[in-house]
Amino acid sequence: MTQIVVVGSIALDSVETPFGRRDNALGGSSTYFSLASCRYAKTCLVGVAGSDFPEDAIALLKKQDIDLEGLEIKEGKTFRWGGRYKSNMNKRDTLYTELNVFEDFQPVLPGFYRDSPILFLGNIHPELQLQVLKQMHGNPLIALDTMNLWIDISRDTLLEVISKVQILFINEDEIRQLNGTSSILTAAKKTLECGPDTLIIKRGENGAMLFHKDRIFILPAYPIENVVDPTGAGDSFAGGFIGYLALGEYRNPSFKDLKYAMVHGTVMASFLVETFSTDRLVKVSDTDLKKRVQNFLGMISVN
Amino acid sequence: MTQIVVVGSIALDSVETPFGRRDNALGGSSTYFSLASCRYAKTCLVGVAGSDFPEDAIALLKKQDIDLEGLEIKEGKTFRWGGRYKSNMNKRDTLYTELNVFEDFQPVLPGFYRDSPILFLGNIHPELQLQVLKQMHGNPLIALDTMNLWIDISRDTLLEVISKVQILFINEDEIRQLNGTSSILTAAKKTLECGPDTLIIKRGENGAMLFHKDRIFILPAYPIENVVDPTGAGDSFAGGFIGYLALGEYRNPSFKDLKYAMVHGTVMASFLVETFSTDRLVKVSDTDLKKRVQNFLGMISVN
Repeated sequence: MTQIVVVGSIALDSVETPFGRRDNALGGSSTYFSLASCRYAKTCLVGVAGSDFPEDAIALLKKQDIDLEGLEIKEGKTFRWGGRYKSNMNKRDTLYTELNVFEDFQPVLPGFYRDSPILFLGNIHPELQLQVLKQMHGNPLIALDTMNLWIDISRDTLLEVISKVQILFINEDEIRQLNGTSSILTAAKKTLECGPDTLIIKRGENGAMLFHKDRIFILPAYPIENVVDPTGAGDSFAGGFIGYLALGEYRNPSFKDLKYAMVHGTVMASFLVETFSTDRLVKVSDTDLKKRVQNFLGMISVN
Repeated sequence: MTQIVVVGSIALDSVETPFGRRDNALGGSSTYFSLASCRYAKTCLVGVAGSDFPEDAIALLKKQDIDLEGLEIKEGKTFRWGGRYKSNMNKRDTLYTELNVFEDFQPVLPGFYRDSPILFLGNIHPELQLQVLKQMHGNPLIALDTMNLWIDISRDTLLEVISKVQILFINEDEIRQLNGTSSILTAAKKTLECGPDTLIIKRGENGAMLFHKDRIFILPAYPIENVVDPTGAGDSFAGGFIGYLALGEYRNPSFKDLKYAMVHGTVMASFLVETFSTDRLVKVSDTDLKKRVQNFLGMISVN
């Protein structure tokens, strides 16, 4: 079974949406990614949590067969994030960010993680992403996610990381910001000249765009009756995407493989947003997944 | 050749976008619709303009073989609208609306328009839409567009019109408003119970959704390097959609016909937004159209 290593945040999130609120619920980029990718491939998590990290959360990750040898539990409090979504769920306000043990996070990969053929660098400081890259052996497939904060404060290092990866996940506003242009197409072209051969632009409720060499694939989001909490949608998208790739010729995926990876990412994200935290994501059965993928293919196929 | 009658506004628009501005340019729902639908089918325009309506504009419509017997030129000024788009082109502010001769518009269909097999009711007061319906003979295919204003001030009449049409075009916020729910899927179901068997939810730069009986098709927008002016995108979408249907079994289109109609609507709208007013739309060659449709099919096909 192909092994994926994911490095990213582990958080306890407090989220308010028009549908209610949830406090101190399991979150963080590596968590959301893992809970999606683990359905497809052996997933090894690298991250740090505090001594307050709930036993339940660890049990939940273990139950999904996620390898936790790379999870460091450190004296202190877990990274906490509080946010509030506006009525249309497109915009959110950050109410607070408490880095806690995440502030001094120094990712160290257990020995057997270092030979993994696939690495996902979740949204953390680009310096840490570089540190992780140096620990890997061989020539893994590397995928990267990032955010506006790093474009603002660590642009050069981020560009260095981008130059070393094959797959970049980034959202619409961020790729505009990164390239200093309002045109998505121009921004995509520029970014593909910097290193990656595959670029996924995340557009939230409006789906995602795939750029691979000179080809484009555009996918809407799966329509959900009621989006309850979109936190983590991007990471579970990436988890479904990379997980699906791990099933096949991930070193040299065809454009069709990448398109199906987009479909799986979209479907994983669609489950995630149906509830707060990871409630729905961890309950997705194989039948649920298969059915929704089929459903979705029906909704987007012209012929 | 199948004949389409379109009833709607004719305007001189002044539009400001981050890319510049254009004053008193040809606009209005019936204009945009006609300039798209005329590529596919004989299009007959019903509307009113003032004595200030430029000769050039009339020449432009005539050059596209649009029948203008239903165009009334009335003493006074043409309907004028002024608007300004924000940087992301999603939102616009109306700077002014001068109804002028449009205020007392009483649509009267020339005799030979009344037997047309297809009628498009552009965005005008639902009372006027009802008046037009009464003038039609036989049992035409009827498509309808509307806007938030009529939901606010003329809801019951609008619902009456909706109950009489087969195809409804409406945007995302409006269908939520019409049905009092934030869920698009719920809103779509409710609307399909009111009469139409086909519903197109317009989502601007995010594409469009098609609901036909119990089936759904979701289509992204065609990606444009630089959107210069989105005014009229919805009407040119409708023009491409209805125009394409007119080429085939429009009385009883298959789901596949409707999906291709969505593709043609999207492509027509994508040309429209590339320039101010109708500059690009009127210059689209058959080769341009065919090429962009093929391009787009490539971008959205999973297989």
